[in-house]
Amino acid sequence: MAKAPIDFWFSIGSMYTYLSVMRLAEIEAKTGARFRWRPFSVRDIMIEMDNRPLSKPLKLAYMWRDLERRAATHGLPYKAQPSYPLKNFDLANRIAIVGAEEGWCADYTRAAYRRWFVEHDEAGSDSSTRACLGAIGQDSARVLARASSEEISTRYTEATDEARKLGIFGAPTFVVGKELFWGDDRLEDAVAWQHKSG
Amino acid sequence: MAKAPIDFWFSIGSMYTYLSVMRLAEIEAKTGARFRWRPFSVRDIMIEMDNRPLSKPLKLAYMWRDLERRAATHGLPYKAQPSYPLKNFDLANRIAIVGAEEGWCADYTRAAYRRWFVEHDEAGSDSSTRACLGAIGQDSARVLARASSEEISTRYTEATDEARKLGIFGAPTFVVGKELFWGDDRLEDAVAWQHKSG
Repeated sequence: MAKAPIDFWFSIGSMYTYLSVMRLAEIEAKTGARFRWRPFSVRDIMIEMDNRPLSKPLKLAYMWRDLERRAATHGLPYKAQPSYPLKNFDLANRIAIVGAEEGWCADYTRAAYRRWFVEHDEAGSDSSTRACLGAIGQDSARVLARASSEEISTRYTEATDEARKLGIFGAPTFVVGKELFWGDDRLEDAVAWQHKSG
Repeated sequence: MAKAPIDFWFSIGSMYTYLSVMRLAEIEAKTGARFRWRPFSVRDIMIEMDNRPLSKPLKLAYMWRDLERRAATHGLPYKAQPSYPLKNFDLANRIAIVGAEEGWCADYTRAAYRRWFVEHDEAGSDSSTRACLGAIGQDSARVLARASSEEISTRYTEATDEARKLGIFGAPTFVVGKELFWGDDRLEDAVAWQHKSG
C-alpha cells in the first residue's frame, strides 16, 4: 500500500527551508517518499513563543554560515547572504496557499526561493512575484487578487492554527503520523521514520 | 602530518552533548579524527544572550523526543527524560576542568553522562561524583578539593571566555580552525571539514 505523504510544513522566508525546498524532488526520486506542501505562518507562531532569531545576531550569523556550508554539501547554489527577513512574508505565503489549492505550490515556492537566494530578489517583492508566477505559467494579476482574498486569508490562518495544534514551533517541520521532525537536517530522519513505521 | 585535534567544547548539563560524549570514541576509531575535550560554561553564555530554553517548553519537549529518537539511531541507551536542568552544573564542569588538566576528562564526562541518562543520578550530585570518580580511579575528596580551588575556578572562567571569543553560543560546539559546528548533528560535518581542509 502506498504510504501517506509526509507533511512538509514551511514558510517562505524561513532560511533553512531553502535547503528543503531545493532537495525534496531529489529525495522523492531517491526514496519514493512523497511530500505534501503545507504553507503556514511560522512567524506568527515564533512571535507568540517570543522566539526572535534577529535578537541573537551571533547565532544568526552562525546559521547563515552553516546554511552556506550545507548548501555546498548538497550541491545547491549559494552566493552570499540574501536579504533577511522578508518584507512581504505574508504575501509570499498567501501565494503559496493559492498554489496549494491549485496544484502549483511546489513550483512557485522553488522559483521564489531560487530567485531570492540566487538572484537576491526577495520572495514577495513585485518583481519576484511577477517573474516566478510567470515562469510557472500563472497569471500574476489573477493570483494576486486571489492571494488577497478573504478566502485565502482564512486558509492561511487555518493552516497556521493546524500547525500550532500539531505542536510546530519552527520551519521547516516534517510530520509523519504524530512525529515531528524540525529542520532541514531532520529531513532524512523523517523519511527513515516513515519507512520503518510501515 | 597528523591533523590538529578538533576542539570539542561542551558543558556537562547540555542535553544533546550526551550524544556526542557517547559517540566520540567511535568517531575517532572510524575516522582517525581526534578531539580535545574543552569544558566551559555554556550556561553563562546562554544567560548573557537571553537564550533560555526552559522558557520554551514546547520546543524543549520536542528536543527531548528528538534526542530520544537520535539516541536510538546511534544505538545509545535512553530510558526516559533525566532530571533537567542540573542542580550542580558548575561543580560537574569544574570537575571536568580538573580532568582536562589531569588527563581523565573524557572518562569522567562519559561516566557522568551515562549515570545521569541511564541511571537517572544527575551529574554533579554527591552520589554521581563519588561513583564516577571512583569508577575512573580518582580520589573524590582530592578532586573535589581541587575542583573548588581558586585555580580551577580561574581555569573554568578562562575557558568560558575563550569560548565566548570564538563566538560559541551553544553546546556542543566543534571547532576546526576558524569554523564552528554547533550541535551533535554537526559532528560529522566538522570531521568532514577537517578532512577536506587537509
